[in-house]
Amino acid sequence: MPIELTKEYIENIQKIIAENDEKSAKKILKDLHPADIAELYNELTVEEAKFLYLLLDGEIAADVLIELEDDDREKFLEILPGDLIAHQFIENMDSDDAADVIGELSEEKQDEILKHISDVEQAGDIVDLLNYDENTAGGLMAKELITANENWNIPTCLKEMRKQAQDIDEVYYVYVVNDDKKLLGILSLKKLLLSRPNSIIKNIYDENIISVDVNTPSEEIANLMDKYDLVALPVVDPIGRLVGRITIDDVVDVIREEAEKDYQMISGITQDVETTDSAWILTKARIPWLLIGLMGGILVALVISRFENDIQINPQMAFFIPLIGAMAGNVGIQSSSIIVQAVATDNLGFESTTQKLIKEFSVAFLNGIILAGIIFLYNFFLSDSFALTLTVSISLLSVIIFAAIFGTLIPLLLNKLEFDPAIATGPFITTMNDIMGLFIYFIMGRILYGVF
Amino acid sequence: MPIELTKEYIENIQKIIAENDEKSAKKILKDLHPADIAELYNELTVEEAKFLYLLLDGEIAADVLIELEDDDREKFLEILPGDLIAHQFIENMDSDDAADVIGELSEEKQDEILKHISDVEQAGDIVDLLNYDENTAGGLMAKELITANENWNIPTCLKEMRKQAQDIDEVYYVYVVNDDKKLLGILSLKKLLLSRPNSIIKNIYDENIISVDVNTPSEEIANLMDKYDLVALPVVDPIGRLVGRITIDDVVDVIREEAEKDYQMISGITQDVETTDSAWILTKARIPWLLIGLMGGILVALVISRFENDIQINPQMAFFIPLIGAMAGNVGIQSSSIIVQAVATDNLGFESTTQKLIKEFSVAFLNGIILAGIIFLYNFFLSDSFALTLTVSISLLSVIIFAAIFGTLIPLLLNKLEFDPAIATGPFITTMNDIMGLFIYFIMGRILYGVF
Repeated sequence: MPIELTKEYIENIQKIIAENDEKSAKKILKDLHPADIAELYNELTVEEAKFLYLLLDGEIAADVLIELEDDDREKFLEILPGDLIAHQFIENMDSDDAADVIGELSEEKQDEILKHISDVEQAGDIVDLLNYDENTAGGLMAKELITANENWNIPTCLKEMRKQAQDIDEVYYVYVVNDDKKLLGILSLKKLLLSRPNSIIKNIYDENIISVDVNTPSEEIANLMDKYDLVALPVVDPIGRLVGRITIDDVVDVIREEAEKDYQMISGITQDVETTDSAWILTKARIPWLLIGLMGGILVALVISRFENDIQINPQMAFFIPLIGAMAGNVGIQSSSIIVQAVATDNLGFESTTQKLIKEFSVAFLNGIILAGIIFLYNFFLSDSFALTLTVSISLLSVIIFAAIFGTLIPLLLNKLEFDPAIATGPFITTMNDIMGLFIYFIMGRILYGVF
Repeated sequence: MPIELTKEYIENIQKIIAENDEKSAKKILKDLHPADIAELYNELTVEEAKFLYLLLDGEIAADVLIELEDDDREKFLEILPGDLIAHQFIENMDSDDAADVIGELSEEKQDEILKHISDVEQAGDIVDLLNYDENTAGGLMAKELITANENWNIPTCLKEMRKQAQDIDEVYYVYVVNDDKKLLGILSLKKLLLSRPNSIIKNIYDENIISVDVNTPSEEIANLMDKYDLVALPVVDPIGRLVGRITIDDVVDVIREEAEKDYQMISGITQDVETTDSAWILTKARIPWLLIGLMGGILVALVISRFENDIQINPQMAFFIPLIGAMAGNVGIQSSSIIVQAVATDNLGFESTTQKLIKEFSVAFLNGIILAGIIFLYNFFLSDSFALTLTVSISLLSVIIFAAIFGTLIPLLLNKLEFDPAIATGPFITTMNDIMGLFIYFIMGRILYGVF
């Protein structure tokens, strides 16, 4: 059962550590999942964490290490000698985790660790994996998998599986290959259990399988595994030979990270931060977009300053500056966020950009007519200036349409240019729409006050 | 291999349908995964889709039905007779999918279908599952699972598994229970493969397992499975009897939906919409928050109108209205989005609300000093009014601090009151911060212009 880390629970552990009570500490650790131990470490001082860490045995210590936050792990490993890291941690890990952990370290440290790994095959696997970009199938996959030759019968297969399975945490499928190691299909463990012992693999495996090339980007893998409800996905090299497998738990992390990245972008935060981070880290993550917002605000001020006289004569014009700006911003974010989500889930459909823009125009026109109508009625009955009434409602309609079109076009353009379209959802687009919106508003005001 | 649905591909299929060429159509369908067939259906007319649907055989047709979008499926099922739905679709589904599909229909339709299901046990499972809230473990779980009694030996276990496995798509674990059906632990298939045939289950199973109660909310399940890297999670009733299992693919959907919901909220969209939806649906999803934004804009206009004279005398005050409003909005969204993400990932930490507010104050103060400093220098050198220079920078600092504190406090408060804290990230908080920010700005202006 998972244990909830309450304040009392942690204080109890701190007391045990302060008393140097190894026996009680070991007892507590025995009941905890590595992910819980890693979480616990966040709440302890470095000295306290070290005390507990030294009580763990190899495999658990390796699992805890994988679960630690990246920067904590990096700091921790930089001070340990390479041979200890190799024997204590790396040799107890699956190749994908080992490569992830080693990949974060400096080149020299990497070499130092790799040369101390006793199992040459494992070291070779890790070196292979280190060559792949971490955001591709190669960077996500593990080398550990169970393969069966198409010509084996079930007893041979089971015997070979017993040999191979020793190194692997979980087995979901057996991958069937030919003599050239080319991937042919999969054999589910269920099928293996249900088939007659004298069956030949060739006759019972499922050849309708989905595999990806080592260079497939991780977002695409996430969408594939989600769409086809896959638990594991085999990875092949360019000539179709099986080189690894990706498991769903790694992909869940990809999905979460992608979603968090887009969310941070739209909220104007540049790094992965948490409420528990220090004030300084939180400040650094927030200041860049605020600076862009500030520059935008200055540009808007320059635009409005061109209309200083108009404001002096009709100060009521100033009342609706925030309304125009806010509506431009809201509409722009609505439009761009729909595109960003469609790109993220690979769901843009078959409409051309022109069709999308025509639809966006209709939506904006509908919304604009309703909103401009309301503000027209409001001002018509409550304001004494008909020029103001017309200015606010006509510019609101135009601003909504422009903001919707920019909000659609810019992320589509960014995506085509292979930038992250989510950039368009940050303060950048709101600022741009602010400038455009208020320019329209004041020009419209100058014209209409001239007429009425 | 997954097939990419290109425009040409779809046009080819439409041609085949137009020609009534059943043979070619069947050949194409044979190569497609049910998820692809469902996707294809979105691009076809109802008539075309029907033509293809009738060519599918039972199990595939059921899988396609599950993959269809909710409203398409509902429309489709409402026109079919209950006995056909029961025999053709429901009897080919796992209990969780069957309950999801039936749960969307009207009560009478549900009864009509249920009474036509030939397998009483299956009908009973579905009725059980229909009783659970869809956002709990009970609503996510399937009844199909493989159990083994702790007293069995491996050959008995394998024999029983062969019997049970027939109904189940994928087998990841065997759940070990005692004579009262209470869940004791799991036996991985790997362990089963590696153990000696004469072992008794009792001696080889793993009792360190994580299970959840039927009433556990789905977000909590998603966080658990993600944290502990679980592929399947057993569900128990209040007295510990095993009642079902949840698989990771269902939880991936929960994670995606949760992330999308928060993303839509922050972008001011009220429903799950896609770029491919009609203009009318897109309009309906966007107008509610825009109306709130409009009301907010009117309120801001009322606030500013109290300062009409100040603006007439110092029209330069109007230049910085958008800057103050935009910064208040940006800071408010940054602060609230961090809280929303912490709540979503169950990652609020142990800091009290007071500690969080103190930290937020420090972050805002740091950011505020930097930004107010820049705008002070800008106006000091480029504006001729020292009163304006001071007004803009002092109010910017205060506005940033207030916005950060509201942005933290309001989602925490909503969360405590068991509302979705994400409400605080929509146009609501930007509007509130706008009003507060501009009020501070104009009051400050009145005071400082009085002095300088």
